[in-house]
Amino acid sequence: MKNSLKFIALSGTTGVTENFYIYEYGNDMIIVDCGVGFPEHDMLGVDLVIPDFSYVKKNISKLRGVLISHGHEDHLGALPFLLKEIKTPIYSTKLVAGFIEDKFEDYGLPSPRVVVFDPERDVISLGVFKVAPFRVSHSVPDGVGFAIDTPEGKIFHVPDYKFDWTPVDGKPFDVTRMVSLATGGVLGVASDSLGSTTPGYTESEREIEGKLEEIIRKGKRRVYFTTISSNISRVQQALQVAARLGRKVSFVGKSIDRKAEIARNLGYLHYSKDLVIPAKQAAKLPIERVMYIISGSYGQPGSALYRVALGDHDFLKIEANDLVVFSSDPAPPGSKTNVDFVVDKLIELNADVHYYDVQEDLHVSGHGSQKDILMLFGLLKPKYFMPIGGTVRHMRSYSLLAQSIGADGRNVFELTPGEIVEFKSGLARLSGKVPTRNILVDGLGVGDVGNVVLRDRQVLARDGVAIVLLMFDGANRVLVADPEIISRGFVYENKEKEFLLRAGKDLRRLIESKKRIDGKLLKDESQDFLEKYFYAKTGRRPMVLPLIVEV
Amino acid sequence: MKNSLKFIALSGTTGVTENFYIYEYGNDMIIVDCGVGFPEHDMLGVDLVIPDFSYVKKNISKLRGVLISHGHEDHLGALPFLLKEIKTPIYSTKLVAGFIEDKFEDYGLPSPRVVVFDPERDVISLGVFKVAPFRVSHSVPDGVGFAIDTPEGKIFHVPDYKFDWTPVDGKPFDVTRMVSLATGGVLGVASDSLGSTTPGYTESEREIEGKLEEIIRKGKRRVYFTTISSNISRVQQALQVAARLGRKVSFVGKSIDRKAEIARNLGYLHYSKDLVIPAKQAAKLPIERVMYIISGSYGQPGSALYRVALGDHDFLKIEANDLVVFSSDPAPPGSKTNVDFVVDKLIELNADVHYYDVQEDLHVSGHGSQKDILMLFGLLKPKYFMPIGGTVRHMRSYSLLAQSIGADGRNVFELTPGEIVEFKSGLARLSGKVPTRNILVDGLGVGDVGNVVLRDRQVLARDGVAIVLLMFDGANRVLVADPEIISRGFVYENKEKEFLLRAGKDLRRLIESKKRIDGKLLKDESQDFLEKYFYAKTGRRPMVLPLIVEV
Repeated sequence: MKNSLKFIALSGTTGVTENFYIYEYGNDMIIVDCGVGFPEHDMLGVDLVIPDFSYVKKNISKLRGVLISHGHEDHLGALPFLLKEIKTPIYSTKLVAGFIEDKFEDYGLPSPRVVVFDPERDVISLGVFKVAPFRVSHSVPDGVGFAIDTPEGKIFHVPDYKFDWTPVDGKPFDVTRMVSLATGGVLGVASDSLGSTTPGYTESEREIEGKLEEIIRKGKRRVYFTTISSNISRVQQALQVAARLGRKVSFVGKSIDRKAEIARNLGYLHYSKDLVIPAKQAAKLPIERVMYIISGSYGQPGSALYRVALGDHDFLKIEANDLVVFSSDPAPPGSKTNVDFVVDKLIELNADVHYYDVQEDLHVSGHGSQKDILMLFGLLKPKYFMPIGGTVRHMRSYSLLAQSIGADGRNVFELTPGEIVEFKSGLARLSGKVPTRNILVDGLGVGDVGNVVLRDRQVLARDGVAIVLLMFDGANRVLVADPEIISRGFVYENKEKEFLLRAGKDLRRLIESKKRIDGKLLKDESQDFLEKYFYAKTGRRPMVLPLIVEV
Repeated sequence: MKNSLKFIALSGTTGVTENFYIYEYGNDMIIVDCGVGFPEHDMLGVDLVIPDFSYVKKNISKLRGVLISHGHEDHLGALPFLLKEIKTPIYSTKLVAGFIEDKFEDYGLPSPRVVVFDPERDVISLGVFKVAPFRVSHSVPDGVGFAIDTPEGKIFHVPDYKFDWTPVDGKPFDVTRMVSLATGGVLGVASDSLGSTTPGYTESEREIEGKLEEIIRKGKRRVYFTTISSNISRVQQALQVAARLGRKVSFVGKSIDRKAEIARNLGYLHYSKDLVIPAKQAAKLPIERVMYIISGSYGQPGSALYRVALGDHDFLKIEANDLVVFSSDPAPPGSKTNVDFVVDKLIELNADVHYYDVQEDLHVSGHGSQKDILMLFGLLKPKYFMPIGGTVRHMRSYSLLAQSIGADGRNVFELTPGEIVEFKSGLARLSGKVPTRNILVDGLGVGDVGNVVLRDRQVLARDGVAIVLLMFDGANRVLVADPEIISRGFVYENKEKEFLLRAGKDLRRLIESKKRIDGKLLKDESQDFLEKYFYAKTGRRPMVLPLIVEV
């Protein structure tokens, strides 16, 4: 039987992040990207979500390597978890390799084997696959897409990208190489769909710098500039503006400090040695001669900017008319409340805050909009389309875009996690699904928090817990005391002592009206009684936990 | 001593909702609006937030009445709570009075006394205050602003509004009356700031209808139309479109059904009797002859649309190519995840979904944007400015707008809840603060859930609870058994039995190594030990609750 090519969206569709795609042909398999996801709002207490590696482990003998497209968490953050379970080489550009090594160090793990490729000329042979990377533009430098040559034809895998003709690092999307790699026809494209609901073209990163300079020039006091720490180009622009305006720069916050150091060491960030000074030294300069580049652009609790905004920072503070400039993509929906909180705190301190929903728009998206997506389609002319890196609605809009230029709707695969597209003899079809589940990371635990624990947390979060202690004389089958009820997160115990005492007494009366008391009856009756009792009296449904002590 | 006018933003600044403002002069006091707020993301399990009525109760002898500006929850929803505590007349337009009565019915309360005023001619005397309402445009009909004539001068109180010259009900913002009421000069304006970060003018409601008709005309199957149930004008437009396209309309969902009925009975919604039919009857028509106007535009869990999207509705379902049109303001930040969830479910059913971030923008804001705000300023030419109905950042942007047309920044009062502006001899100044707190409504409890309970819920939500039962022989001062640990929301108990057993044994060993055991030591040591133990082993910090049973 003839082999077929399988494309598996193991995760990374429907949820924007957690990018993890598999290409499989016969005895060969490669992975593109290995990112983390962020917990949904009902995944209480969960730190991260990572892809389900079961399918990879089952087919480990086929695995030829992992290709990483760029330096964002949702494309490389799950590598430490993968590499704890299996061994495989990683392939990436130089800057991305730097970020990967840093990530492993962060987890206290030994450096993994990263093979650095050159996106201008290298072609990587991985089993039957010949993978040619090509440069794309995005909000972190040194990102690529991949032309994957397979026995069934060429698939272009293009994660996060936009067409930026005037990028800060002077290295635009390498359209020439991509188009030449496309010679001979393109079977399919798997590409970024996140911008598919945004009209027009995405603006160039370059647009920012002039606006930034204009704003900072007006600052008569301290200047705080914040962006996502991986956005090296934005940091480069901030450095250039500072240099032109005669301000020294100080990096504040571990993440931005490390990322900048890596980028500079590898030649992706350029500034003269005396421009950047330690924060302690900056504190001695006149306040109008300093710019702080500070981490926490999404208002992350505990980040440097968060602490400054709350007046909790060791050595930095914000006073009236200090300038605070936010310059990053809009926060993901889950983080919007965090950044809003920080922005409001800064405004209360009478800082002059430049945030896109206060004044001046200083962000441009890293993702191509509708016209960028159509341009990619026009350049590649693929037969099949696979939207990635978006939600269900982005995939649908992407599909509508493809259809607007004549694609057959049946040739667009809006995949849910685990779904397989099989290519055979030039034809593609949906072909089943790899079973996958969400692997939740909570503290040190990976995968041990599941639905039961989450459901319990949801109940506890909403109405708290009431523990009822029943002292039971098993021999005589009587309660030896009133049931004692302790609650947390339900009613304010100190104030409601009387209420809980009465509930205990009422419960005892009920139990003693029963003919035959045993442990099971005690447990069931008290749970049932108290749930109804509490709901009737308070309209709340705390988790009721009976504890029976035989004495 | 000469009296002064006090304006107190008791709530409704910094948090958008929960509008509640007090005007006080000598022995007279009036309230403008009495709305609910919605819980912040960290107020776990809380249903509503209502204003703190303490100040009103303390000054009850001065209270002359409550004026309600329009029919939205954040302007009238707290009336049942206020009227449970005090007696006072309510003043509003006819439609708003209908909504208020409905709300009291909903709470099972007797109808309150609502005095209906005519915004085209009435002037209401409330003690020293002469209040003249005037019509404004908003996303619910029959809304007004108030010209409040006081011994100190005129304050214009203009909550949610925009300038819509082609409103659906044919009754635009009554600029003529407002301007004539402003004759003689305006001391201050307290007005809607929510649109202050949005450039330009807000579009007219009328714009929607043409787009809507175009989309629905293409629908070959069922049509579902959803908007906020109070948006009577949008419902009117949907009805008109349905009539023109030969579709019967069926209202689905209690809230939309009731609001439409009230509006029709009071003459605010017009349609011929045979246009609207019951859902059961609609089910018998060909699917291309029906339009459902359905509640749940914010994806509210349990709403009609939510249930249809999940395939849980009694008698309605959605199939491929059914049309679903969302036409309401963007959901408040906290609801975005709800509506996204519903939209994604609908797309998965292959419905043709029209939602602003999928395709076609079918909402216009009910709030004036920057140019509308500047127009209001230009028409009233107030000396003092008080932004209301927005967050800290909206107030700041509003202040920048006022300054852009020459206002002195010191004449703009960005108030935090409770702050008092005092007007005396034509001059205004900040003059202290009325102590207020958030009154949280949780189930049947009003105000009993406070910081302690919320903090407990936050801990429980993140890492769950571990209860440790210690059986203590007080006479001999020894533990009679290994401490028993029960957990919920921490680790999956069935799988982690061994882990919890071991923790109990380790705890016993520690305790028995102590010289003198007593109840307090038991409690403190086990809490301390287990907190550290669990964090070291799992990276989590569950709430540890020791229960000591003396036997």
